[in-house]
Amino acid sequence: MSGSQDQLSHWIESRKSLLELAVERRFQHVRPVSPVLHEAMVYACAGGGKRMRGLLVLASAHCLGASEEAALPAACAIEAMHAYSLIHDDLPCMDDDDLRRGKPTCHKVYGEALALLAGDALQTLAFEWLGQADSSESIRFRQMQVLAEAAGSQGMAGGQALDLLNVNKSMTLESLKQMHACKTGALFKASVLLGGLSSTAATSEQLQALTAYAAALGLAFQVVDDILDVETDTAVLGKTAGKDALANKPTMVSLLGLESAKHLAKELGETAQVSLLPLGHSAWVLQGIIDQVLKRRS
Amino acid sequence: MSGSQDQLSHWIESRKSLLELAVERRFQHVRPVSPVLHEAMVYACAGGGKRMRGLLVLASAHCLGASEEAALPAACAIEAMHAYSLIHDDLPCMDDDDLRRGKPTCHKVYGEALALLAGDALQTLAFEWLGQADSSESIRFRQMQVLAEAAGSQGMAGGQALDLLNVNKSMTLESLKQMHACKTGALFKASVLLGGLSSTAATSEQLQALTAYAAALGLAFQVVDDILDVETDTAVLGKTAGKDALANKPTMVSLLGLESAKHLAKELGETAQVSLLPLGHSAWVLQGIIDQVLKRRS
Repeated sequence: MSGSQDQLSHWIESRKSLLELAVERRFQHVRPVSPVLHEAMVYACAGGGKRMRGLLVLASAHCLGASEEAALPAACAIEAMHAYSLIHDDLPCMDDDDLRRGKPTCHKVYGEALALLAGDALQTLAFEWLGQADSSESIRFRQMQVLAEAAGSQGMAGGQALDLLNVNKSMTLESLKQMHACKTGALFKASVLLGGLSSTAATSEQLQALTAYAAALGLAFQVVDDILDVETDTAVLGKTAGKDALANKPTMVSLLGLESAKHLAKELGETAQVSLLPLGHSAWVLQGIIDQVLKRRS
Repeated sequence: MSGSQDQLSHWIESRKSLLELAVERRFQHVRPVSPVLHEAMVYACAGGGKRMRGLLVLASAHCLGASEEAALPAACAIEAMHAYSLIHDDLPCMDDDDLRRGKPTCHKVYGEALALLAGDALQTLAFEWLGQADSSESIRFRQMQVLAEAAGSQGMAGGQALDLLNVNKSMTLESLKQMHACKTGALFKASVLLGGLSSTAATSEQLQALTAYAAALGLAFQVVDDILDVETDTAVLGKTAGKDALANKPTMVSLLGLESAKHLAKELGETAQVSLLPLGHSAWVLQGIIDQVLKRRS
């Protein structure tokens, strides 16, 4: 079924609420040995953000005919993994940011040490939540493998290191793309794979199509991030605007200029569209998400 | 077979070398996107330490008749998890320590930001390594679950938070024990379970016996840690001595006094011994490890 704009908005909004609720409920089942640590984890992970990665899990599962119940634990897990990365990214020794999702960052509220631990524990929680799903052990095992490969030194953490080591340096477009492919792309790819794997009938062709889509979408997301960092106010963005230029970080905009960066984002959106072709009409939500990524204002 | 002191020393030394080699080899198979991040991870995880947790994995596997090949990936994984916790624990916002395993701490060599990321990536790597074992998906899945439950907010990270929040506070013996049960005990228990699960024939009675043993041993290990912190030089210890008193942290020694702490360690050793009874003579290495823990000088 191909969806209209209204259908798409309704799908996304309703699934976002569902995901929000699922994250909150899952936290209620965690029996904390330290209530303050638990509070810091909930603060950073529940109630907020675009939930792009979690939505990608649900949309990919939807595309391959898996139930929401099967995909929700993985959607929560990827959001926990993402929340951990944001907490650590915002720490004084990293980006030293005060604002995230329109709220003070975790370390601003709970202090550096507890924020560090909250991030650490959220990473673990991502694996724990994946392990608690209802699906077969084999599916859950493969999902845990996908998540581990995406988050570590060959994926997200590796990309963060490249980011860190390239401050005040010049980068080629290729190495900037590689950095983003690790820092953002790896978790985007993991999201669609986690969703795809929720379907017991997923074929490797389908998973390949999803991966190609996520690679293009992830890079488009990052290019738009770089554009918004230049063009948008802190108040709208919900995080400090203009930080990259201030920190002298190479960005798509600093490398290509604003117009070419916008053109690249559009091109990547088209690549993402084409990647979905093998999946047919059932990919209508994933298609719609491309527009959401390209047109987002925060 | 019951082992003599010589047999035990030989078993431990040979398995420690085997483990050291396995960790190094596994790192050679990680294709780093950031060589510096990779170097920081290797620095913190390879070549050093008592390898107590990894040895517990191997000794538990040995006790239940599993092969070393089956248990080695889990032994490497638990060492990666432990190394991550040490890096983060040593960071300036936590214990702010300069020395670990007789070497400058990771952040002293690579800076805070990269040390943070190295710790993050080592946690992920622990799950990745578990997923790469040769055993059945079902065993690997259960091992990943065990590790996740042990490392998170209800285990190690939760214990770290309790530790942090109790600086300059008075604690009862019970709450100090709970803190150690999370901070140290959880990973000790995970170690014996990971080893035990390497055997396809492990019964729940055997796993329970191993868990009871690890709980007592973990607490004994921590009591001895507190004693060594008071009684031993930095040079022998390989990490800064006297830190706990300086940081005004409640310890077993500050709560009980030195003599009672020593008595408690001995009692816990006996509890660990008794816990092993259902496992019979095949637990001779696990038995021997108790003595090693009680008599260690660093």
